[in-house]
Parts: sequence; C-alpha cells; structure tokens
Amino acid sequence: MAARVIVVTGFEPFGPHKENPSQDIARAVHGRRVRDHVVHGAVLPVHHADTGRHVARLLAELRPDAIVHLGLANGRARLALERTAVNVLDYALPDNAGRCIVGEPCATDGPAAYFSTLPLTAMHAALTREGLPAYISNTAGAYLCNQTMYGTLHALALVPDPPRAGLVHLPSLPSMVAVSGLDEPSMDLALMLRAVHVMLDVVASDLATA
Amino acid sequence: MAARVIVVTGFEPFGPHKENPSQDIARAVHGRRVRDHVVHGAVLPVHHADTGRHVARLLAELRPDAIVHLGLANGRARLALERTAVNVLDYALPDNAGRCIVGEPCATDGPAAYFSTLPLTAMHAALTREGLPAYISNTAGAYLCNQTMYGTLHALALVPDPPRAGLVHLPSLPSMVAVSGLDEPSMDLALMLRAVHVMLDVVASDLATA
Amino acid sequence: MAARVIVVTGFEPFGPHKENPSQDIARAVHGRRVRDHVVHGAVLPVHHADTGRHVARLLAELRPDAIVHLGLANGRARLALERTAVNVLDYALPDNAGRCIVGEPCATDGPAAYFSTLPLTAMHAALTREGLPAYISNTAGAYLCNQTMYGTLHALALVPDPPRAGLVHLPSLPSMVAVSGLDEPSMDLALMLRAVHVMLDVVASDLATA
Amino acid sequence: MAARVIVVTGFEPFGPHKENPSQDIARAVHGRRVRDHVVHGAVLPVHHADTGRHVARLLAELRPDAIVHLGLANGRARLALERTAVNVLDYALPDNAGRCIVGEPCATDGPAAYFSTLPLTAMHAALTREGLPAYISNTAGAYLCNQTMYGTLHALALVPDPPRAGLVHLPSLPSMVAVSGLDEPSMDLALMLRAVHVMLDVVASDLATA
Repeated sequence: MAARVIVVTGFEPFGPHKENPSQDIARAVHGRRVRDHVVHGAVLPVHHADTGRHVARLLAELRPDAIVHLGLANGRARLALERTAVNVLDYALPDNAGRCIVGEPCATDGPAAYFSTLPLTAMHAALTREGLPAYISNTAGAYLCNQTMYGTLHALALVPDPPRAGLVHLPSLPSMVAVSGLDEPSMDLALMLRAVHVMLDVVASDLATA
Repeated sequence: MAARVIVVTGFEPFGPHKENPSQDIARAVHGRRVRDHVVHGAVLPVHHADTGRHVARLLAELRPDAIVHLGLANGRARLALERTAVNVLDYALPDNAGRCIVGEPCATDGPAAYFSTLPLTAMHAALTREGLPAYISNTAGAYLCNQTMYGTLHALALVPDPPRAGLVHLPSLPSMVAVSGLDEPSMDLALMLRAVHVMLDVVASDLATA
Repeated sequence: MAARVIVVTGFEPFGPHKENPSQDIARAVHGRRVRDHVVHGAVLPVHHADTGRHVARLLAELRPDAIVHLGLANGRARLALERTAVNVLDYALPDNAGRCIVGEPCATDGPAAYFSTLPLTAMHAALTREGLPAYISNTAGAYLCNQTMYGTLHALALVPDPPRAGLVHLPSLPSMVAVSGLDEPSMDLALMLRAVHVMLDVVASDLATA
Repeated sequence: MAARVIVVTGFEPFGPHKENPSQDIARAVHGRRVRDHVVHGAVLPVHHADTGRHVARLLAELRPDAIVHLGLANGRARLALERTAVNVLDYALPDNAGRCIVGEPCATDGPAAYFSTLPLTAMHAALTREGLPAYISNTAGAYLCNQTMYGTLHALALVPDPPRAGLVHLPSLPSMVAVSGLDEPSMDLALMLRAVHVMLDVVASDLATA
C-alpha cells in the first residue's frame, strides 16, 4: 500500500527578497516521514495565475491527506498560523510576473472567506510547549499567500472528504534582515524547520485519530 | 607566559524573565580560545550595587585585554552594539534586590556619558557579512545594563592603557517569547552564540593589531 | 417625508480603558445632517449578547440607509477601514459582562466572513485627500468589534435592499496613552471627528448615486 | 526693562518630508508671552554646518533665558523629551546640503555627551496631567537634531550662568502619514502646539523660582 502524503509548499523569492525561508523548508522536508505519512515538499511560483495551477496539479497527482502552505511575511516576529483566507487580491508589490492587483476577488464566484482546516489550536499549543514563538493570526494579508490558501480551500470546497489545508506565515531569515538594514524581526531557519516538524506531527496525529 | 584574557559577562534572569540569553552565552564561551586570547565568561547579579563590585573584582583579578558585557533587551529585533553609556539610572522594573531607581546618576562625579571602546564598526561589518542581524545602537537604556557599561568605563577611565570595554544587547530567546504570548522578536541561542564568536574574533584581531 | 437616516455606533469603555473615542464620536455626530441624511448616534454595550440585540433594535426602529460601527483598536496608528468581519470570537480580555470567549463562531450557521458594504475605497481616498491617516484593514480582530460587524452583516444578509454596513477602528485618544505610559500611537478626538464626517459624506454621496 | 526671552527653534523640512511640524510650531509661538517671558520662534536650516551658526547668532543676539529646540522624529508615537545629546554624527539620510556623515564627532574636543538642562521631569509630569502623550527619551539619535542639541550645550558649557537648553522630538503630522501610506503614528499640530505651551510654562515657572 502506498504511503499517505502530506504536501508542504513554499514560495520562490519575490519582490526585494533574495531568499525565502518557505522555499528552503519545503525542500528540506521533502521525503521525510511523519508518523504514517511521507512529506512531499514543493516550491510554488509567485505568480497570480500559475500558483493555483501548480497547486491543482499537486492535489490531483498526489491526493494528499493534508496540504500545508508556507509563506514569508517579513516584519512578523512569530510563526503565524493563519485562521482565514479572504476573497481579496490587493497588492502593490508586483508578483514575479510583474503584475500588481488592486481590490479584485481571488474567485469571482467564491465566498468572502474560508477557514483553515488545519488543527490550529493543537498546533499552537504544541509549538508553545516546545518554546517556539507562534500565534493564531487573523489575517493572511491580501497578497499571493492569501490567494494560495484561498484558492486551495476553494478548490477543495466541492471535494468529498477533502484533505486538510491551510497556511503558516514565516518571519524573515536573519540573513535577510542583516542585509536589509531594516529593524525587523527574524527567525533562524533551523528553528523554523523544527517548528514545521512540530506542526506536521500534530497534523499527522490529528489525521490518525480523525 | 599566561594567555591573554577577554572577559565576557552575562546577567542573571531578572524581572518577569525566567531566562536570560546573556547568562547562557557567558557560560558557553567560558574557556574558549579566540586567536591569542582565552575567554573568561562570568555571570553578573542584577543588583544596583553588587554588579559593579563583581566587575571590579573581575578586572582586578584577570587584568583582561577586553571586557564585553552582554545584556538582555527584550523587544529588540537585532543585536544592539551599544555606542554610549549615559550617567543615568532610571527604572521602574525592580532589580533583583527589589530596588527601583528614578533619575539618579550612575556616578555622582562622572561625566554625562562614555563611548564604548570596542571596535563597533568592524564588529557590525563582520556580523552583517555573516548574515547576522545587528546595528549600532544609540541608547543602552537606563537600567542595569547601561549602569554596568557606564560603571566599567568609569572605573577604567583613570587606568593607563585600559582594556577595551563595551556592551552588546541581545534579543529575547524564542522560548521566552513563546511563553509570554507577547508579539515580540526573538533570536535563537545558537545564532547569538555564533554572533558573539564573530564579535570576539573582531575584538581579538583588533587587539593584535593595536 | 421623514429624513433618511445613517446610524453611527460607538462602544462603551471596556477592559483597562476608562475612555473610548468611538463613544464620544457617536454622541458628537448625533443629530447632524450629512447631505440628505440625518445621523443617529448610539452607544453600544461591550457585551457578547446584548450588543447584537441593541443593534437589531436600531435597525428595526430606524430603518437606516447605512450603519457605520466605530470601535477602539488601541495600538493602531491610523483609522482602519475594516474590509472583513470573520465568524470568530476569540478574546482573553473580558467583555463588560466579565465573559471571555475562546474560538467560538459569532453565528453557528453563518459563513466564514462578510465583506463590508461601505464604499471603503472612496472613503480611503477622501481621507487621504484631507490629510487624515487611514488604511483598508484586512482584520477587525476577534473581539466584540468584529462580532458586531459580523452580526450586523449576518442580520442584513436576508434583508432585501439592505442598508450599507461596516466598521471603522479608531486609534486610542492621546489622554489614554498619556495615562497608560505605554509607547502607543494616538489620534486627537477632533481629528477623528473630522475623519468621521469625511467618511459619512462619502457614504451619503454614494447612497445618493446608488 | 526689556522682556526676558525664551527661544523656540524648529527645523525646515528635510529628506522625504514636505512638512515639518517643528517649523510650524516655531512660527506659531513666535511673539507669545509665557509668564514673564516672550517667546522668540526661529526656523533652523537642516545643514551640518549652518545650523550651529544660526543658533550661535540667536544666542548672541537674544541672550535668552532658555532655548528649546524642536525637531521631527517620524515613527515616534509620543513627544520625546530628550535627556542626552551625544557627540556623534552618523546619518545616511542627506541633510539639505546633500551631505551624509558616518561616525564623526559633533565637536572634536567635546565630551561624549551633554544632559539637557531643561526641567524634563516637571515637563513630563505637566504633559501627562494634561493628557498629552510624552516620555523622557534616552536617545536623540545621531542626525542633525542631536547635533543641534549637542552643539548648543557645548557652546553654552563655558558661559557663566547659561540659559537652559534642550530638545524635544515631535511625531509626524497626520497629513505626512496620510500621504506616505506608511503605518506610522502621528500627532495633530493643535495638540503639539498645546503641548509646547505646557512645556514652556513649566520652563518659565522653573526660571522664575531658580
């Protein structure tokens, strides 16, 4: 019998950022086992249209039990477990296709928002227990991270027995802050990687008992 | 011939903090060699009077070439290379003797401020090169960290050929932020330890060429 | 023919706050005329259950063309035109009935979120033109302000030709920050009152052309 | 007998700022009486060399009892009563002569710092009593505001019975934040003007009893 899959996605660097920790983590966790599951890590483009197509392909091909999107939220001090994705695209920082979008919906026929279907409360509790700074966030913004979370949940809305899905925002890497000269918080890659393991373990445990 | 010494001090936990990364680092670097120097790590009490006596003893007994004070500045996102210590004690958070001090001088006969005599610009450049977030800070506050830096530089002001001296403020540990629930930046201990090594190497190199 | 009505609500003080600018403004605008409309200002209790009942009564009795909720968001630097209300109650600061709620829906049968039906983009543009700091916010939090906005939009969801409805979060008053000793932004009441006039004028103008 | 004088200085706009509240206030208070004193308001250039010459002229011609420098510190939320000016110029934002300075002293022969000789504690208490957000700040930065405060105190260091002197940093104006789109605090000009009156009254009262 084939191993069950949890997909973890990261994003390419974008805008002024030469690095993106979500990409590094997606690569680092690829192939790891978490309880009964094997992790499939994938890097998504930062592109208003291609990103969704890439996710659709992952869902169709891998039929995962869960998909955890990781994204960069520079300026945040802690891991942000996103509670909600809203049906809004509104960003002035061009995506990697050079496109800005002001006040459009992610899906013209979609509801105002979707809730994450990841076990956020248990994930948050496990992270805190491990001394890893995290919080349950009330906004995933209106950039491509939010769009990806919204798009995935919208695509899964009509699927019977859909996989769990959601998004976690990561702080900047220390090296990004060192170079930028900005007074911004950061988090070490090793620490974030440990946090992702803790979260995936909660997800896998939750799937086992579901 | 006895090895030359660089002293690195940390502080005990204080106030609401159960941990203090400066203490952990002072212990971790004790006994390490940096170029021609051996590091002596020491943990200082957080006490308006005892701290200075403790430092005086270290200076008298070890006759170091440099003394680098490390302290905790929760809320800061980056390593803060303190440029200046001012002749002010002004704090509402009790020290570990239960004492608060409002608007008194560190030394009644002292000047308004002392500059750090550590090679801050070179330290900052080396940290940035290594991808470690740091900045040259214009205020060490008015709590015991500032007092310790001021007190050390004041004690050394009359010494011929005095050791280099200064203070670096550290962010909170991730575990401190996880427990507090506050939206505050943090820095992993391993990263801070690496940063202290980078800084000590610059100090030792600077002493060699001086 | 009776004048058409725009309702503006504020909240009582709550938690550690002795004042609440939203209350002051709701009182100050009561009875004013804005184009073809007369403003009805009302102060809502900060109470998980009573607040909604109070709003229901206002809607039933006054049959307004628009209802603009104002609330306090201490810590924010600018007027926050809330884009979305989410179906979540999650707060550790007791309401004025002494109640905390962790992770419950505003309405068990409700959708994940509602969008504000106020003309946010035009309101934002008018405020900026007048030199008044504002932004379109992606989260109204998970406290009673969000609940009130959600509850109103949920109540109006089945009404044919419903009034426009939404929420604007206000910064703290200067006097609140002066007393607290916290390093938080504030906004003068006169400035906020001017901003509310600018916003109501946009709402009334929008209603006239709708 | 000629009226005794308190000088209040502001600065021109600089860098990206089209406005500077300190300039507006210096003009607004010019000619006002505060107890036994008349206020002389003056606008200083933002120029590494001219600023000091301009202040020297004011001191020589007006022989004031006190000189209160006002400057803009965008990003700060409250009035910052500066405790200390340090002997450092270090700024990457060009002054209005197009000059940047990295790590030079304000005065090659000067001490590390000077303390403000304004009655900061009484000023802070009076502002708090009036509901005006303020704090005693431990750093005036390393830009021209700090240089001006340092330069004035350095020039007065050898004067017998010198006038009181110091610097207060002001937040941005609301209109500056509205235009910038930045998430920064601001303070209304009317409120800042009221705060300056409160502070000048404390200064004048203090001079009367000295």
